[in-house]
Amino acid sequence: MNRSELKNFYFSVRKTSEEICRPLQTEDYVVQPIDDVSPPKWHIGHTTWFFETVLLQKFQSNYKPFHKLYNFVFNSYYESFGTRVERPKRGSLSRPTVKEIYAYRAAVDEQMNGLFESIDTKHWPEFSRLIILGLNHEQQHQELLVYDIKYIFANNPLRPVYRKVRAHVSESIPDSEFVEFKGGVVEIGHAGDGFAWDNETPAHRVLLDDYKLQNRLVTNSEYLEFINDGGYTDFRHWLSDGWFTVQQQEWQSPLYWEKIDDQWFIMTLSGLRELDPNEPVCHVSYYEADAFAKWAQKRLPTEAEWEHAARAVKANAAEGNFLDDQYFHPIPCRTTGPNRLHQMLGDVWVWTASAYLGYPGYRQEAGALGEYNGKFMSNQMVLRGGSCATPRHHIRLTYRNFFQCDKRWPFTGIRLADY
Amino acid sequence: MNRSELKNFYFSVRKTSEEICRPLQTEDYVVQPIDDVSPPKWHIGHTTWFFETVLLQKFQSNYKPFHKLYNFVFNSYYESFGTRVERPKRGSLSRPTVKEIYAYRAAVDEQMNGLFESIDTKHWPEFSRLIILGLNHEQQHQELLVYDIKYIFANNPLRPVYRKVRAHVSESIPDSEFVEFKGGVVEIGHAGDGFAWDNETPAHRVLLDDYKLQNRLVTNSEYLEFINDGGYTDFRHWLSDGWFTVQQQEWQSPLYWEKIDDQWFIMTLSGLRELDPNEPVCHVSYYEADAFAKWAQKRLPTEAEWEHAARAVKANAAEGNFLDDQYFHPIPCRTTGPNRLHQMLGDVWVWTASAYLGYPGYRQEAGALGEYNGKFMSNQMVLRGGSCATPRHHIRLTYRNFFQCDKRWPFTGIRLADY
Amino acid sequence: MNRSELKNFYFSVRKTSEEICRPLQTEDYVVQPIDDVSPPKWHIGHTTWFFETVLLQKFQSNYKPFHKLYNFVFNSYYESFGTRVERPKRGSLSRPTVKEIYAYRAAVDEQMNGLFESIDTKHWPEFSRLIILGLNHEQQHQELLVYDIKYIFANNPLRPVYRKVRAHVSESIPDSEFVEFKGGVVEIGHAGDGFAWDNETPAHRVLLDDYKLQNRLVTNSEYLEFINDGGYTDFRHWLSDGWFTVQQQEWQSPLYWEKIDDQWFIMTLSGLRELDPNEPVCHVSYYEADAFAKWAQKRLPTEAEWEHAARAVKANAAEGNFLDDQYFHPIPCRTTGPNRLHQMLGDVWVWTASAYLGYPGYRQEAGALGEYNGKFMSNQMVLRGGSCATPRHHIRLTYRNFFQCDKRWPFTGIRLADY
Amino acid sequence: MNRSELKNFYFSVRKTSEEICRPLQTEDYVVQPIDDVSPPKWHIGHTTWFFETVLLQKFQSNYKPFHKLYNFVFNSYYESFGTRVERPKRGSLSRPTVKEIYAYRAAVDEQMNGLFESIDTKHWPEFSRLIILGLNHEQQHQELLVYDIKYIFANNPLRPVYRKVRAHVSESIPDSEFVEFKGGVVEIGHAGDGFAWDNETPAHRVLLDDYKLQNRLVTNSEYLEFINDGGYTDFRHWLSDGWFTVQQQEWQSPLYWEKIDDQWFIMTLSGLRELDPNEPVCHVSYYEADAFAKWAQKRLPTEAEWEHAARAVKANAAEGNFLDDQYFHPIPCRTTGPNRLHQMLGDVWVWTASAYLGYPGYRQEAGALGEYNGKFMSNQMVLRGGSCATPRHHIRLTYRNFFQCDKRWPFTGIRLADY
Repeated sequence: MNRSELKNFYFSVRKTSEEICRPLQTEDYVVQPIDDVSPPKWHIGHTTWFFETVLLQKFQSNYKPFHKLYNFVFNSYYESFGTRVERPKRGSLSRPTVKEIYAYRAAVDEQMNGLFESIDTKHWPEFSRLIILGLNHEQQHQELLVYDIKYIFANNPLRPVYRKVRAHVSESIPDSEFVEFKGGVVEIGHAGDGFAWDNETPAHRVLLDDYKLQNRLVTNSEYLEFINDGGYTDFRHWLSDGWFTVQQQEWQSPLYWEKIDDQWFIMTLSGLRELDPNEPVCHVSYYEADAFAKWAQKRLPTEAEWEHAARAVKANAAEGNFLDDQYFHPIPCRTTGPNRLHQMLGDVWVWTASAYLGYPGYRQEAGALGEYNGKFMSNQMVLRGGSCATPRHHIRLTYRNFFQCDKRWPFTGIRLADY
Repeated sequence: MNRSELKNFYFSVRKTSEEICRPLQTEDYVVQPIDDVSPPKWHIGHTTWFFETVLLQKFQSNYKPFHKLYNFVFNSYYESFGTRVERPKRGSLSRPTVKEIYAYRAAVDEQMNGLFESIDTKHWPEFSRLIILGLNHEQQHQELLVYDIKYIFANNPLRPVYRKVRAHVSESIPDSEFVEFKGGVVEIGHAGDGFAWDNETPAHRVLLDDYKLQNRLVTNSEYLEFINDGGYTDFRHWLSDGWFTVQQQEWQSPLYWEKIDDQWFIMTLSGLRELDPNEPVCHVSYYEADAFAKWAQKRLPTEAEWEHAARAVKANAAEGNFLDDQYFHPIPCRTTGPNRLHQMLGDVWVWTASAYLGYPGYRQEAGALGEYNGKFMSNQMVLRGGSCATPRHHIRLTYRNFFQCDKRWPFTGIRLADY
Repeated sequence: MNRSELKNFYFSVRKTSEEICRPLQTEDYVVQPIDDVSPPKWHIGHTTWFFETVLLQKFQSNYKPFHKLYNFVFNSYYESFGTRVERPKRGSLSRPTVKEIYAYRAAVDEQMNGLFESIDTKHWPEFSRLIILGLNHEQQHQELLVYDIKYIFANNPLRPVYRKVRAHVSESIPDSEFVEFKGGVVEIGHAGDGFAWDNETPAHRVLLDDYKLQNRLVTNSEYLEFINDGGYTDFRHWLSDGWFTVQQQEWQSPLYWEKIDDQWFIMTLSGLRELDPNEPVCHVSYYEADAFAKWAQKRLPTEAEWEHAARAVKANAAEGNFLDDQYFHPIPCRTTGPNRLHQMLGDVWVWTASAYLGYPGYRQEAGALGEYNGKFMSNQMVLRGGSCATPRHHIRLTYRNFFQCDKRWPFTGIRLADY
Repeated sequence: MNRSELKNFYFSVRKTSEEICRPLQTEDYVVQPIDDVSPPKWHIGHTTWFFETVLLQKFQSNYKPFHKLYNFVFNSYYESFGTRVERPKRGSLSRPTVKEIYAYRAAVDEQMNGLFESIDTKHWPEFSRLIILGLNHEQQHQELLVYDIKYIFANNPLRPVYRKVRAHVSESIPDSEFVEFKGGVVEIGHAGDGFAWDNETPAHRVLLDDYKLQNRLVTNSEYLEFINDGGYTDFRHWLSDGWFTVQQQEWQSPLYWEKIDDQWFIMTLSGLRELDPNEPVCHVSYYEADAFAKWAQKRLPTEAEWEHAARAVKANAAEGNFLDDQYFHPIPCRTTGPNRLHQMLGDVWVWTASAYLGYPGYRQEAGALGEYNGKFMSNQMVLRGGSCATPRHHIRLTYRNFFQCDKRWPFTGIRLADY
């Protein structure tokens, strides 16, 4: 990208974050109902802090921080950048106010605007590399913003509506089928010049057996069969840690499902809705995905299988349901076209059977940015494909998302595999 | 009080709550940094809910609740009124918004205004009794609002200022002396027609030995001697539970004290200030008060001693430092006049050596209002005298406040006694 | 007591502790199923440590501790004697073994035996004072041993029997009646030369209104009415802290009660037995005692009322059911004689409505022994009268026992009062 | 194996468990200082219960359980076999006594002895399969017994000695070198008729890059360099979860290391010893192993690399330091012979970089025995090679052990890899 393209990209991404927050009341920006959820105002400040700290401090000569305490307030987890507000305490801070944070944001954007003009050719490569990194970082926080706003709204007994969007109703969807893929030594991972996170590299070969992948995502109606078959009360389907969690958290369905007078409803960003049987099941943990697969006598795909299949069918983000579509919810499988696999990108991240670990030859970046991905490589599983909360531009076939096995507040779902 | 007096009192108290919140930003209304602290918007809603539930629902025919879920959102601890948001979750709710809560408040006040006119003579006695109860309840929440706002501000690394008030500086204060009182069978507790909480009744006789009471409150400089003498590191001064708390909470001073470059500062509602040695020590727990007394080879007064002495010297709220004075902080002892005891009312609640239990013959009211005081009669100690956060009108010589032994966020201090 | 009397007393008390442990298997000495319960071997060691530390170290010249680490292992809570094994960790130590601890015990007893002979007249008064203190201390641990052994046995799914004792069956017991007592200024507390704990002093006057006291202890059948009337599910009877505890601990009956096929059983030290309706209710917390009293439209007596009544009726330990009777369980009210109040001493400690605080003029002893009682004067309630686990010799009308409001593993019961 | 061979194997394994416990005092059998550690008497009972439940109940006609509650007391985690004592409560049970459990053991062994004779040919294959499974199960508990006994002893301030064994002193050990292995498509996992756990199957091909493996285990002296270089205080070496654990647990060295007067000691089953720099480092968590590898600019091997190398060098258990050697501690690398890799088997389990997940095509056994391995396949890492607490007969090159990342009480160590 040249200067003007990159600058446009910058301001476009920055604007998207603000767009996501437009429906919020000031109060919605402040709360943190569970530790996983950050107050939206923190995201708005933190993404700004990232550019201030990684770009302005480095490239703007004599840069004076906007506020001497914002590094403490808006640092997330970078030990390299010093002490910070503990994560579970983010929701205990009323100040800086939303208005002050937007002023901070405007001030940093203004300085960034100047930098796009003034940066010299010598520094351009590093500058543009870090800009792109910062924008991808911001896109991740856009996705988190959607998760967190949903939780904040769904947690509220008044059941506020974020944006009233008409439901995608679908009379029929493709039957569940398992598509065969030929194994062998295949390459996965990111290669080439385009942006990717360090955890997607290096590209490397893996040996795959022949495998089968479900042609579409698992639906609510299929998951309901599992529930109605006593899925949540039969230990035999569950991992030991999962069974413990089911009992301790008293799980009886995915997050955001509610049974009212014997009918299932789900809380969406458009408010409470009757459960649509054809929609992809969403907000399930790894434990639930794995238990469902065992109950169905199938399994979850490895990330290598998923990526190999996605490459094989030339999965294309243009066809998926992403943040840009502003539906904020997975939609029933629409495609019955020639593509053998539907819903590979968008809608919901699918849990894979792969632990989140470094690829062979992986080395984390030096310095603060090395803290981005590598230090989380324990006790998490890989998810693939992006969701309806992911910016379309942000996804890649090599993209590795990761969460702990018990997390359900992201838009997570299931695609089965078989031998 | 006649109708118009009571109506004036009603609107005057209601207005005070709003006045207390005037310096707040919207965000300040929302957060709950610790379980003890409620979000200010909750106080504004809860005090309104009290009038809606206890008055409008009873006296307004066909009254339709303002919002069907507000009973759930704004009930504090009344089991009689059904389930409610758990206390530690109050800060997880962004809605209703501050604006919506003020609209609720205005709507209830408007209906109340109508009731003052329309209520018939037959119902007036019960109506006025409950109004007065509700207003006293609201005054208690005014006091809590000041505590909670202080905590919210002091907890914030940006150290916001609530209201910039000039410090009361005092070159000199009276020396500490112990004033003798003659014991005997004396009466304490509330009698007569004026308003009092049920826990102040019945008036009853107690037998007192002769005793001595300190002529003024313990000061920061006196408490600093305790600190400098290793008070927080010598178990011999402490109750067992207190010593446990000191170690677990790593207490080294009262709440809101900070040592910066070897100098003590305290956080006030007017911001961070140098410690004034002559101010009454504030924000100490019962454990600290008791340890200080042991260290000083004195003791804390019983509540009967305190009340007897207060009656004997005709302690008068007009002379005290109360919420109405808008100083929001205790001030150095000013009076050197004829009164033998200074600072008996206002400034800080003093911890007594008396557990919070029912007086002989105490019976809690039937129904929901019976939950007001009686059910808290375990594991708490009595405090007396009101504080700089108490509305002056609200205090009485018979008033019994109560907190658990480890609480420090109220404006609590020390007055010693001796035999 | 002269030398030989005191020596006899010493060895008699020491032997009783060992007698209590005689039915134990080695394994029973070791476990700590909850924090409150100490392993019996710890009690055996700790009571020995007390004599070693308080007597031998002081009076035996050049005394060399039996084992340099036993002070660390067997100190209970005396900060004066340095660091120690944290209380909840006592059950994690397999060594010293039971045999080693009895060897320690024998060695200390042998040295003590020598001291009884060799101590000179000058030191005798202090020596004998401390011996008596140490023996009273040991008697308290005898009582705790019974509590702890009961918990250890009842907690075990195999339901071991401690000692098979035939149940005291009683066809009839006196009806519940309330006996009137005249109030006035009365004296309570310990005076005179006999042994008493510092917390029983000083004797002092209190003013009592006229009051009534129940003629006997509350029975299982009376308590069962409370249960059957929904006592554990109606918040209106409960203190707020109590209601919280009921829900969190899922209490539905006193400790050790079990409903099997719709019939109530209780676990005793003689094994599981059908509930005897005439036995005094036992193993209730203060919260339950208070809730029962509210439900019964009565109240709990203050400790002054209890003591005054006990003195008035000349309550006599000889008539009570104590440890010496080796019944290890409260028994139905037997006495229908001239005494107006039955079961005042022995059977179960009764919860009073009085918080455990220092009497007017109370001063705790200097040094380590000052840690004995005074430092526990917060968050506890006073109990009176002794129990079937108390050595008969140990009780006094002035005796003040104390526990936190939620404790149920001691032998605690209820006697009601009224105005 | 024929009948008499299998019977000999049975009684030999059973005897070993008892041998391991021989140095214990009764009290040592009872305690559970942390949740991970089970009381030795529980292991003795549980391994017996396994044979009773899986063999006697199935093959002995009209078998009547030894005690109706032992299934409740000695079931570990088999949901299929019903409710059981919660794991952290095992140490709260004094009964059954050690003697009773050995009686139970003898009774089951006697019945088993009979079965070896009486079982008919038709049932022999299933019978012998389950016997072998049960014996391997018991061997795993033998290893756990050593871990747990070590913890119980090391946790005790008296520092008891389990067995006094002379330290293997070694003047010199081989220098650390990295041995190259050629990659390619290789097979790992168990194939053939011999016993293996289901998690070792199916044998399958994996693609390996060329890699290097350290010629011996990492030593105490090498690990000490990491410590002395500030390893425990520099977040850059650590996984995020690991850094959290380091701070929360205040780790400053491996488990059982102690610094006394500036010199390092370690607690062993032979008591406290000076740290031997040449011994393999032991009792490190995955977090520490990973941090050490990062600090050393190396990495941990994958389990496929480890197994491939072990096969390549024909690693042989006969050369390793196992339970049978009764040294109970890792020993310095002795071999300087032709083998390119030393200490591959025995001494310490080495942490691999592989998450514990099912192999491609893995299916867990149906019924209760399916709970053995498969349900633990989340949040754990694979360890390879066995330890000085593993029975020699029990290990295989395909053996997969697994623990959570923070566990340190097993005998765990480090062997580095490189590209």
